[in-house]
Amino acid sequence: METKKVRIAICGYGNLGKGVEKAIKQNPDLELVGIFSRRPAEKLNTTSAILSMNNIESYKDLIDVVVMCGGSANDLEEQVPKFAKYYNTVDSFDTHAKIPEYYEKVDEVTQKSKKISIISVGWDPGLFSINRLYGESFLPEGNTYTFWGKGISQGHSNAIRRIPGVKDAVQYTNPIKKSVNKVRRGEMPELTARQMHLRECFVVLEDGANKEEVEKQIVTMKNYFSDYDTTVNFISEEELKEKHSGMPHGGFVIRSGKTGENTKQIMEFSLNLESNPEFTSSVLLAYARAAFKMSFKEYGAKTVYDVSPILLMPIGRKELIKKYL
Amino acid sequence: METKKVRIAICGYGNLGKGVEKAIKQNPDLELVGIFSRRPAEKLNTTSAILSMNNIESYKDLIDVVVMCGGSANDLEEQVPKFAKYYNTVDSFDTHAKIPEYYEKVDEVTQKSKKISIISVGWDPGLFSINRLYGESFLPEGNTYTFWGKGISQGHSNAIRRIPGVKDAVQYTNPIKKSVNKVRRGEMPELTARQMHLRECFVVLEDGANKEEVEKQIVTMKNYFSDYDTTVNFISEEELKEKHSGMPHGGFVIRSGKTGENTKQIMEFSLNLESNPEFTSSVLLAYARAAFKMSFKEYGAKTVYDVSPILLMPIGRKELIKKYL
Repeated sequence: METKKVRIAICGYGNLGKGVEKAIKQNPDLELVGIFSRRPAEKLNTTSAILSMNNIESYKDLIDVVVMCGGSANDLEEQVPKFAKYYNTVDSFDTHAKIPEYYEKVDEVTQKSKKISIISVGWDPGLFSINRLYGESFLPEGNTYTFWGKGISQGHSNAIRRIPGVKDAVQYTNPIKKSVNKVRRGEMPELTARQMHLRECFVVLEDGANKEEVEKQIVTMKNYFSDYDTTVNFISEEELKEKHSGMPHGGFVIRSGKTGENTKQIMEFSLNLESNPEFTSSVLLAYARAAFKMSFKEYGAKTVYDVSPILLMPIGRKELIKKYL
Repeated sequence: METKKVRIAICGYGNLGKGVEKAIKQNPDLELVGIFSRRPAEKLNTTSAILSMNNIESYKDLIDVVVMCGGSANDLEEQVPKFAKYYNTVDSFDTHAKIPEYYEKVDEVTQKSKKISIISVGWDPGLFSINRLYGESFLPEGNTYTFWGKGISQGHSNAIRRIPGVKDAVQYTNPIKKSVNKVRRGEMPELTARQMHLRECFVVLEDGANKEEVEKQIVTMKNYFSDYDTTVNFISEEELKEKHSGMPHGGFVIRSGKTGENTKQIMEFSLNLESNPEFTSSVLLAYARAAFKMSFKEYGAKTVYDVSPILLMPIGRKELIKKYL
């Protein structure tokens, strides 16, 4: 007997949408209905069905969950409330400071539409958030440290690209090993931004641009670089393409706590990702499965905190207990 | 306004029960009602109230959750079904092979009593189980590796103690660094038991015992040592007490997976614990809080897979989102 598959649609066909399209093939209980995109079908290099953004409600009977793959900066705040009127959704909204307000907005829509929207899914926010909560729950006395990297920060790369004389740039955020080790040893250090992360930049200059001037502008840039030790490497366009066009990322959440009479206890969750968007896509899909299961019993805006682990897997309780407990 | 505290009782006053007694002081929303013990009150070195094992039902109106702190080998299979007739319970039943059968037994009782019993809570089974499931959910193509240690195995220590001529012994399980590193690099090796863990023994002999004979009996012991590389160190009773009376443990669950076109993605969860029982106690308490919250809506036997992260914390959704998401 074959059970019915969960019918997934993708909204947005950038790195994340492409990642979801690939990841669906790794999940036999899920099937792709199609991709909502603003771009004309012939411009998208895919064999998947293209769904129209103009009549999103017309696919209502064909789709169980829409995986929202737009960007946090421009797309999600507008698109998710629109889609959540008709569909269960999951998204990776990651502007930390705006999440509470975003949650309220999506909750208002879904309380009316009686759909489920799991917001801010991915690894941070997402799996890192879960591990911050686990740390606080299991070791109420202690400190939590989040380190990122080695990985590319799009925001910082873009900030460098806006400097006059810069043709292209990539910025890596690197955790400072010495500080990580202190934390891992349970020393509970107080760490400044500068003590936690290094910023490493690879910059391609326009012809005739002034190296010293560009470097100075980078390292003194407020909010982005001035609070960090920053190294700037000038390289050729070819080298940038060859060596720095991947999208690796990762990091660790470490909880350093104490129990009883000063007993040290350390929990750590870490990720080492060759492709940040492909991993995020894969996490989004597992939460899409959960959203589908939850939609029979509840509605409203949800976060990863509301999702019990059993909902993420395509198999039932008895098999789970036997294989993984 | 002070909210009512969750009223916790402990059943069993060994290392785990003592750990729970201490951990309650770190959780202001929980309070200890007392300790169920078979031993007479004057033999227990505690100022907590001692509750009688003879009339367990008589405290029904005073206790919200009983944290079952007996051993898996002898106590829990008998005690949990008894207590779950009257109380919500959490326990750390950890005989992996017997969990499915134990689950059924506890479920039968709690379906009748309409209480919640969260079974097999702790770190393995427990947090490691959750991370095995997360690995499979987020990276459906890949391998999961569980390494334990460095830590003391009570089962292996006891097996050595049963050998004639042995006065006392402690056995450490150590992960093999070389194999861990292969896994962390995403090489997905096939590993035998011998390639994953080393067994390191510290043995105190009785006067006149034969070193060679004892060592041979240890390293050739079926099910315990014969499938591993084992080192045996003979030491004095004083040295054993001085250097090997702690209860450290830990380990890692590593998921090595692939997404897209062969993209390597690694997830890892690790623990480095100075006291195994104190950490387990602390995890049990967070799940006791969850059991209490769940008891208003559902009943039956549950596992860590059924518990959404939000239930583990004493604070509400909005604060959680703001602080940890």
